[in-house]
Amino acid sequence: MASIGILGITGRMGRLLVEEVAAAGAALAGGTARRGDQWPTDPAALARTADVLIDFTTADAAIPHIAAAEAARKPLILGTSGLNAAQEARLAEAARHIPIVYAANFSPGVNLLLAAAERLASALPAEAYDAEITETHHRQKVDAPSGTALALGHAVAKGRSTTLEAAGIESGRDGHTGPRKTGAIGFASLRAGQVVGEHTLLFAAGTEHIALTHRSFDRRVYATGAVRAALWALGKSPGLYGMGHVLGMA
Amino acid sequence: MASIGILGITGRMGRLLVEEVAAAGAALAGGTARRGDQWPTDPAALARTADVLIDFTTADAAIPHIAAAEAARKPLILGTSGLNAAQEARLAEAARHIPIVYAANFSPGVNLLLAAAERLASALPAEAYDAEITETHHRQKVDAPSGTALALGHAVAKGRSTTLEAAGIESGRDGHTGPRKTGAIGFASLRAGQVVGEHTLLFAAGTEHIALTHRSFDRRVYATGAVRAALWALGKSPGLYGMGHVLGMA
Amino acid sequence: MASIGILGITGRMGRLLVEEVAAAGAALAGGTARRGDQWPTDPAALARTADVLIDFTTADAAIPHIAAAEAARKPLILGTSGLNAAQEARLAEAARHIPIVYAANFSPGVNLLLAAAERLASALPAEAYDAEITETHHRQKVDAPSGTALALGHAVAKGRSTTLEAAGIESGRDGHTGPRKTGAIGFASLRAGQVVGEHTLLFAAGTEHIALTHRSFDRRVYATGAVRAALWALGKSPGLYGMGHVLGMA
Amino acid sequence: MASIGILGITGRMGRLLVEEVAAAGAALAGGTARRGDQWPTDPAALARTADVLIDFTTADAAIPHIAAAEAARKPLILGTSGLNAAQEARLAEAARHIPIVYAANFSPGVNLLLAAAERLASALPAEAYDAEITETHHRQKVDAPSGTALALGHAVAKGRSTTLEAAGIESGRDGHTGPRKTGAIGFASLRAGQVVGEHTLLFAAGTEHIALTHRSFDRRVYATGAVRAALWALGKSPGLYGMGHVLGMA
Repeated sequence: MASIGILGITGRMGRLLVEEVAAAGAALAGGTARRGDQWPTDPAALARTADVLIDFTTADAAIPHIAAAEAARKPLILGTSGLNAAQEARLAEAARHIPIVYAANFSPGVNLLLAAAERLASALPAEAYDAEITETHHRQKVDAPSGTALALGHAVAKGRSTTLEAAGIESGRDGHTGPRKTGAIGFASLRAGQVVGEHTLLFAAGTEHIALTHRSFDRRVYATGAVRAALWALGKSPGLYGMGHVLGMA
Repeated sequence: MASIGILGITGRMGRLLVEEVAAAGAALAGGTARRGDQWPTDPAALARTADVLIDFTTADAAIPHIAAAEAARKPLILGTSGLNAAQEARLAEAARHIPIVYAANFSPGVNLLLAAAERLASALPAEAYDAEITETHHRQKVDAPSGTALALGHAVAKGRSTTLEAAGIESGRDGHTGPRKTGAIGFASLRAGQVVGEHTLLFAAGTEHIALTHRSFDRRVYATGAVRAALWALGKSPGLYGMGHVLGMA
Repeated sequence: MASIGILGITGRMGRLLVEEVAAAGAALAGGTARRGDQWPTDPAALARTADVLIDFTTADAAIPHIAAAEAARKPLILGTSGLNAAQEARLAEAARHIPIVYAANFSPGVNLLLAAAERLASALPAEAYDAEITETHHRQKVDAPSGTALALGHAVAKGRSTTLEAAGIESGRDGHTGPRKTGAIGFASLRAGQVVGEHTLLFAAGTEHIALTHRSFDRRVYATGAVRAALWALGKSPGLYGMGHVLGMA
Repeated sequence: MASIGILGITGRMGRLLVEEVAAAGAALAGGTARRGDQWPTDPAALARTADVLIDFTTADAAIPHIAAAEAARKPLILGTSGLNAAQEARLAEAARHIPIVYAANFSPGVNLLLAAAERLASALPAEAYDAEITETHHRQKVDAPSGTALALGHAVAKGRSTTLEAAGIESGRDGHTGPRKTGAIGFASLRAGQVVGEHTLLFAAGTEHIALTHRSFDRRVYATGAVRAALWALGKSPGLYGMGHVLGMA
C-alpha cells in the first residue's frame, strides 16, 4: 500500500488531502506544518519516509520542497500556483531526477475541458467561430480573469496554432469597445455569492454555438485529483507531467 | 379596422413592421422614407391619414415625428433610442395631448423580465444576494453593457429602493479588482457570433441562485411588440406610457 | 427574544434548524425526538414552553403535532410534505385557531420563482409561449417530477386561469409522442450527481425565450426560510399562510 | 472549380445546398427533383456531369442514388436518415468503389461534440459521473429522444467501452422511477417554440459537473457541412467516411 506525505497538512487543502488519502485506500505517511505543534516542519524527513509527496502550499516554500523530494528520489505532486521563472527552472531541473506532476488545477473535469478546448479550437475556424470565456467565482475573489479562464484561453490559442497574446484578448468590455476583433478571445468575469468556480467556453458562429462548461462545487475535487496523481506517479520515469498525463489524455 | 402608419418604412425595422401589421390583421396606412422614391417623406401627411404612428428611426428625426403626431392628435409608438434631454422634454410635452408609448425594448419578454427583476430585488436582501447581469450580442455591437442590461440594473436598483449609481456598478472586471462590493450590481458583456440579444440577471446567495434569462432570436419580436402597443394605444388618454402598461403589468 | 421549538430536532433538518435559530438570534425552546434519549418525545410539553413550533418531520406525525400547537395556541411552521386529504382538513381546522405557515418549499428563491411564474404566465399567451419545466436532483431521488416542479406547473396554470390538469401535462416524453399540444405544460427530469435541487421554467415562443432558474446548493436554505417564517408568524392572526405571505409577496 | 450535383434540389435542404455551394465558391452541376418540372428526375445523368453528389432526400431513394454515384464513380455525400439494414449493406458495398460520407448530422459542432463526448466518457468513471443528455426541439417534433441525443448516448457508451443498450437507458422519467442506476445514461426531451436543435451532455459527480452544449440556430449549418464534405471527398480513396474524417478528427 502506497504511503503519501502531505506538505502543509494543517491547511484547508491539507485537511482535505488527508481525507482523500484515506478515501483512496492509501496510507498517510505524515505531513509537515509551518509551525510544528503536532507535525514536524522538516520536508526532508517526510520525503525519506513517504513514497510520494503532495504540495499545495505557497510559492515561497516550493524550492525547499522540490529539493527534499529530489534528494529522496520521491515523486512530487505540485499544486502551488504563482511560481516565478527561477522556481520553474528549479522545477524543471528536479524533473530530470524524479517524476513531478505540476498543474494549475487538479480537477479531472477542468483538465478534460482544457484538452477539449484545444481540439475544438483546432477544428473550428477562428474567422467563423468567436471564442468567449466566462468565469464565475465567489465575491471574495480579488482578480480577474481567473487562472483557469486564462488556461482555457491559452488552450484555444494553441488549438488555433497561435498564442493568446498574438490572438488578442478582449477582457473587461465596458463603454465604447468597437466591434469584436476576428480571432480575438473574449473573457467575462462574474463575482457572485459563494461560487467555488464555474467556467464556460463558447464557440459562437452565426448558425451554431458550442459551449463547454465546468462547475466546481467543492474544493475537495482538487484533493481527489492530487491523490489520483500521486498514485499514478509511483514508479513513473523522471519527468515533468501534467494532469493530462494522469488522466490518460496526453 | 385600425390603420397604422410607419415612419421609416424602408429600413430593416420598417419592413418587419409592415409584415407584423398584416399579421395582426390591421391595415397599413402607409409610411415615410428619408429619400422619397416610393414613399412620401412628409410625416405630417401620414399622421393625418393613419390612426396611429410607429417610429423606429433616429433621434434626429424624433422632434418632427413627435410634432406631426401631436398636430394630428394621433397616438405615437416610439422605439427610437438615444434621445437627448431636449428631445425627451419635447416628448413629455407632446404626451399632454396624445398617448405615447416610449420604450427601450418592445419585446414582451424583456419587459416582463424588467418587472420581475424589480420585484425579486425588493424581496432578496442586497447584503445576501449579489446581482450580476450578463449580456451577449453579435460581434458587430460596438458598446457595452447593452441598453437592456443597464435597464435591468436600474430595475434591480429600484427594487432595492436606490439608484444604479448609488448602488455601485461593477463592469468590465479585469486585473486586480479587489473583492466584490456588497450591494453593487455587476455587468459582464460577451460578443459572439450573430446573437440577436441574450440577457441574464443572477441573484446569487451562498445557498441559492435565482436567474432570469431572456433570449431574442429575431428582431421581429420588437416589431410584434410595437404593433401590439399601437393597437393598445388607440383610444387611450394622453400620457407617456411604457410597455409595462401595454402588457398590463403597470 | 422569541423562543422556537423544533419537532424532530435530531434529524438532518432538525440539526440545521438548531443552527439557524442561533444564527437568527432567537432562542431554542427545545425539541422533540422520536426516540427520547436526549430529547423528550411529547410535542404537547414543547408546545407549552415554546413561542412558536417548526415541524419538518413526516406526514404520520402531522396530526399530533398540529393538535399540540393548536391546544397551546402557538403558531406552527409546517414543512412536512405528502399530507393526505384528512391531514390537510385537520390543518385547515387548526388554522382557525392559530397561524400556520404551510409550504412545499421554504426557500425564498423558490417562492419568488413561483410568484414570478404565475405573473409571466398571465402575460404570455399560451398559444404562442410553450411552458417547459426542467428539474435536476441527486441520483438517490426516487420520483419525478419533483414537488417543486409540479408547484411551478400549478403556478403557470393559475396564471393562465386554468388548472394543471385542464391545461394538460406532457411529462416523460419518450418514443412517438406526436407534436406538442398547445397550452400543455411540459416536464423533464434529470438525475445527476448530488444536485440538491435545480429548476428551470422556460417560456418559449418562436422569436424569444424567457427562463426562470433556481438552484439550491444547500438544504440549509430551507431551515433559514423556516426560521424566518417562525419569527414572522409571532403575533399574526389565526389562518393558513404560505411563504408568499412571509416574503411580503401575497 | 469543383461542380456539385444536388439530389432533391427543390426541397428545403436542396435550396439551402444551392446557396451554400455558391457561398463556398463551387459550381452547381445541377440537380434532380421528384417531379421534373424544371429539373430532371434521373440521378444517373446528374452523376455523370457532376464531380460529386449530395443527397438529403429519403431512405426510399437511397438505393437508386447510391447506384448512380457508384456507376459514375463519383463521391457521394449522404445525409438521408432512417436507412434500413439492406440499404446500409448496399451503401457499404458501394463504398468499395467510391468515397461516401455518411452522417446523421453534418454540423461541425455536433460532430465535434460527439467526439468530445466519447473522450470525456473514457476519462470519467461511470461510477462517479452520471451522464445525462437533454435535447430541446420545436413543438412540431413527434418523437423523443432526438437522433442526435441518441448519437451522444452511443458516444458516451463507446467511451465507456460498452453499448448504450448494455449501459442502460433512463428516458422519460415520470412517476416512481426508483434511484438512478449507476452507469445508466439519462435522456430528457423538451419541446419548445421553434428551437432548431439544442443538445446538452452533462457529466455530474458530487464535486464537479462538466457539460457540453450544442445549439443549432439554422438548418443551413447542415448544408454548410455537407458542402464542406463534398469538397473534402474529391480525390479521396473509396471508403465509408463520417464527418469526423471531414473535420480531421478521426
